[in-house]
Formats: sequence, C-alpha cells, structure tokens
Amino acid sequence: MDRPIPYAEFPSELCSIARTSEIIGDRWTLLIVRDLTNGVRRFDVLREHLGIARDVLARRLDRLAEHGVVERVAYREPGQRRRHEYRLTPRGRDLTAILAALMAWGDRYLAGEPGPPVRLEHRGCGGEVTVALRCSEGHPVAPGRELALRPGPALFAALPPRDATEDR
Amino acid sequence: MDRPIPYAEFPSELCSIARTSEIIGDRWTLLIVRDLTNGVRRFDVLREHLGIARDVLARRLDRLAEHGVVERVAYREPGQRRRHEYRLTPRGRDLTAILAALMAWGDRYLAGEPGPPVRLEHRGCGGEVTVALRCSEGHPVAPGRELALRPGPALFAALPPRDATEDR
Repeated sequence: MDRPIPYAEFPSELCSIARTSEIIGDRWTLLIVRDLTNGVRRFDVLREHLGIARDVLARRLDRLAEHGVVERVAYREPGQRRRHEYRLTPRGRDLTAILAALMAWGDRYLAGEPGPPVRLEHRGCGGEVTVALRCSEGHPVAPGRELALRPGPALFAALPPRDATEDR
Repeated sequence: MDRPIPYAEFPSELCSIARTSEIIGDRWTLLIVRDLTNGVRRFDVLREHLGIARDVLARRLDRLAEHGVVERVAYREPGQRRRHEYRLTPRGRDLTAILAALMAWGDRYLAGEPGPPVRLEHRGCGGEVTVALRCSEGHPVAPGRELALRPGPALFAALPPRDATEDR
C-alpha cells in the first residue's frame, strides 16, 4: 500500500504515544519520574521537593508501580519505623529519552535570558548530551517533511479494508 | 564546583522539564499535538478523531496558541461560514522529538504481541527513525550512569551559596 492513509483514519487509541501518555502524560507524573531519575527516592523528600500533596503523590506512585515503572523497596533507619523508597525499574529508567526531549525543548524555547538551568553531560567524555531523531542508516532526521508515518501490522489489522481504486 | 549537588536541592520549578510539562504535560494536549503533527488541523476533525469534548479541545488549543505552539488560520469553504484550522508553528513542529520519544517507549513496552502500530520512516532513504541520546562528541549515550547532570548558570544564580568545606 503506497497511498498515504489520512491520519484522521488511524484509530486514536491504537497508538504508542496515546498508550505512553496514558501512563505518564500528566505534569506531576513527569516530575516524579524526573526526580526518581535523578536519585530522589524517598516519599517525604519527593513530596517536599515537588511541593505535591501527599495523596496525589501516593496515587501517582501507585500507578507507576502498577505499570511496572517503579518498585517500592522497604528500608529502615535506626530507631525509625520501616519506610519505603521508590526506584525506577529498567523500563522506568528508559523514560530518560522522553525527559531529555522535554528538557531540550524547554531549554530551547522557554529558558530565556538566563539560559538552560542544567545541562546533560556524557560522563567521561564530557560531551553535551542531546536527544535527536536519527534513522537506521545513520542520518540525522529533521522533524517535518523528512519524516513519513507508515502503518505497522497492528494498525493494518485494525483498519477497514480499502478499495485500491477509491479516490480520496 | 565538582562535588555533585543533591537533586533535591535543585529548585523543582527551575527546570526545562517542568516548564515544558506546564505547557504540554497532559494527555489531551499530547494527543492534540500528535494529530496536528500528522496533518489533522480542523477543529471538528480533531474533535471527532480524539473523541474529546468541544470545550476541552477549545481550551487546549487556546492554551497552545498562547504559548506560540499553534496558530489559528481562517479558511472558508464554498457556501460555508468562515472556520479556523490550527497549524503548528516552528516551535510546535519542534515537539516532534518528544512525540517520537513517547512513541518509542510505547512501542517497546506497551505494544505487546501485535507490535508497533506505526513506524517512522526517513523519507527518501527508507531508514527506520528512532530517537536517541547522543553526545556532542558523537557517542551514543545510554540512560543511567553515563549521564551526568551539571548545573547551568541559571541554576547557580538561584542556589544558596555553599561552603566549599561543608561535608554532606
């Protein structure tokens, strides 16, 4: 099939962006994942750092745990009752590219005069880390016309059959 | 300054991830930007494709326009009243890397047996497009220990002065 399918005919829910957004597509969750990625793990430290209500934080962490993004690990400090900290699982750590993309856009368009608050460095080599689109042939890819969306097998199975001679 | 600053001491709001999330960090907005990126531009088509309430869509589009992510363009079809369509501005088109990162994660962890619904192709060369962390020296960078967060000037200005001999 070479003729492009209008995007409005793709089922909106049959989409990896929709599925990922269902799990992490709210501002608090993104900030929680950001903090966890940067080593903030304890409930009370997260709560204070984010300025988030206790029940909101608890609900977000529970949901991330349900989806296998974080795991609760018990710890006990001397003389204290048992508490939990939250750690990203491997799939949670893999959210880093999303955070880096959010950061790059904010650095570029929202940082203003004072410039980017932080930068990402490649440990060891010291190079500045950015996130970029790249194709399997090794070419950098600009957003826009260089990108084509192709249906995958999961989508073909869900689309109604199309008449090859139909004109759109 | 070589000693790392604990992330919980970084002001949570002085952060490009927080700023970007403030604008696009909700599920509907991400899906609206996805549709606009894929050429769905008319209010009624967006509404129907997304299955979103009219007022929710209008509010999200207004907010994206306020932040310079979309612009409203008037059009009129023969015999119809004037309507508007919504187009991404250059900064809006630049959200593509964020969408691609959300998509890559969903493809990897949420697509299950049927596999990715769509794939991104580099138009012309046909290569599969992915989003990846890369450093200015050209190295691919894995999330996790290879990444170091360094304060930028905007952050130093906002942090309280630190005693160099202070032990943490």
